[in-house]
Amino acid sequence: MKDTKDSWQDSWFDTCAALLTDPQNLRVWSVIVSLFGDLAQRPGDRLSGGALSRIIMPAGIKPEAIRVALHRLRKDGWIDSARQGRASAHFLTDYGRAQSAEVSPRIYTRAAAAPEAWHLLIAEDGAGQTALDDLLLAEEYFSIARNVALGAGPVPEDIDDDLLVFDASARTVPAWVRLRACPPELSEAAHGLLRDLSQADALLPRTPEAISPLQIATLRMLIVHRWRRVVLRQPDLPAAFFPADWPGPACRAAVFDLLDRLPRPALAELEAE
Amino acid sequence: MKDTKDSWQDSWFDTCAALLTDPQNLRVWSVIVSLFGDLAQRPGDRLSGGALSRIIMPAGIKPEAIRVALHRLRKDGWIDSARQGRASAHFLTDYGRAQSAEVSPRIYTRAAAAPEAWHLLIAEDGAGQTALDDLLLAEEYFSIARNVALGAGPVPEDIDDDLLVFDASARTVPAWVRLRACPPELSEAAHGLLRDLSQADALLPRTPEAISPLQIATLRMLIVHRWRRVVLRQPDLPAAFFPADWPGPACRAAVFDLLDRLPRPALAELEAE
Repeated sequence: MKDTKDSWQDSWFDTCAALLTDPQNLRVWSVIVSLFGDLAQRPGDRLSGGALSRIIMPAGIKPEAIRVALHRLRKDGWIDSARQGRASAHFLTDYGRAQSAEVSPRIYTRAAAAPEAWHLLIAEDGAGQTALDDLLLAEEYFSIARNVALGAGPVPEDIDDDLLVFDASARTVPAWVRLRACPPELSEAAHGLLRDLSQADALLPRTPEAISPLQIATLRMLIVHRWRRVVLRQPDLPAAFFPADWPGPACRAAVFDLLDRLPRPALAELEAE
Repeated sequence: MKDTKDSWQDSWFDTCAALLTDPQNLRVWSVIVSLFGDLAQRPGDRLSGGALSRIIMPAGIKPEAIRVALHRLRKDGWIDSARQGRASAHFLTDYGRAQSAEVSPRIYTRAAAAPEAWHLLIAEDGAGQTALDDLLLAEEYFSIARNVALGAGPVPEDIDDDLLVFDASARTVPAWVRLRACPPELSEAAHGLLRDLSQADALLPRTPEAISPLQIATLRMLIVHRWRRVVLRQPDLPAAFFPADWPGPACRAAVFDLLDRLPRPALAELEAE
């Protein structure tokens, strides 16, 4: 009986892991960032090399690729590593933790922000562009045109003097703006994720005990990673800015339905297996 | 005594007429449009060729130039002419009257419009430009950038579907926008007009009877013509859009002070002289 159970277990898990693996260009360092953000974001949280490999390898990622990615993350100051007995333990640096904490609210909120107030920034053609470009890089602004950006909430205090600033509320949003808010790649990624989440949901064992902590860690990592690539590219904008068939809200609901069925394991459980 | 009085009269009038003559590029057809708009805009209003010459010539415009301008205005459908006994009478066509009536409210209002509501129109870069360009030609919009226009009042019903529309209220207006609302030529024209109006005001005889109907017609024509070239180029915008030293409101007050001292003569008075 054990063999049969194991092979059924492998089968649902492998299928789920394959389903939830991002079909586009899986960057290993970025997957590791998602994993630490999800499971080991608090100061003192550590994951051994062994646990990392066991969580990540089911996504079809080889140990060498994990080693290379860890090397890069260390070089970029995101992650640090320490010997721990005969093994090594990896953890987010203060910088990595700060970066992770900055995007976590957008990733993990169950209700998208729906600000009432909006402001528009307009830059002078040509020379004035720089102030706006700098802001677009640093802050959450939606770029309507090269010289126009839309921001949520009231006008920040320290806005550049060369920008023309309006309090604004959208009346009519034409198709070209909706396409800019939600380009085809983003729409496709969201539709694909919604479909894959629904299939994974159907495959997941109904009894929580049938899913091991490591399996949970893998699946959470894959879900969070794909959701992150949708939600962080999706500007927080009023519904009128999205196409009629925009699956963002449905996607968000499906992500948290599934994450709720896969409650975060304690780090100790992951090391124990 | 008569000679002295006449020569004093000539002197103040000639000086005033010279002062109030637009220093920039006086287009005779445009002066005639100002004159008809000011004195003969109602249906049935007519001015003989003789009266026209007597009103216009003190601005240093020669009879040949008046003839050429009338010819052009007839060709463009603004003015028509009819024989009246041995002379000819000139009058605005229905088209000319409609054109004149369209701008009169802006020229003759004593209080600049101060709308509470504003809307912004944003066009897509490139292809979407055309819809906005068409609107800028036809309506009172202030062009903030190639792709952005600001309009007074609520959003019109029939706005192009391809334009992104915001209800908007300006918070910060940088120098480059104020320079766009009021370019140096406009600022210079307004400052110059204010100075010349003040000098003319000082020269004008205190006793109304000392000014003949024809002199009034000439001076009104010159004042209205210069004011027209300032007020129609000055967008109706909140004060924040103008430079601190913008003399628009002072100019408007001085124009109406002077026009009040020069009440419109009846057309019959102009023909009688």
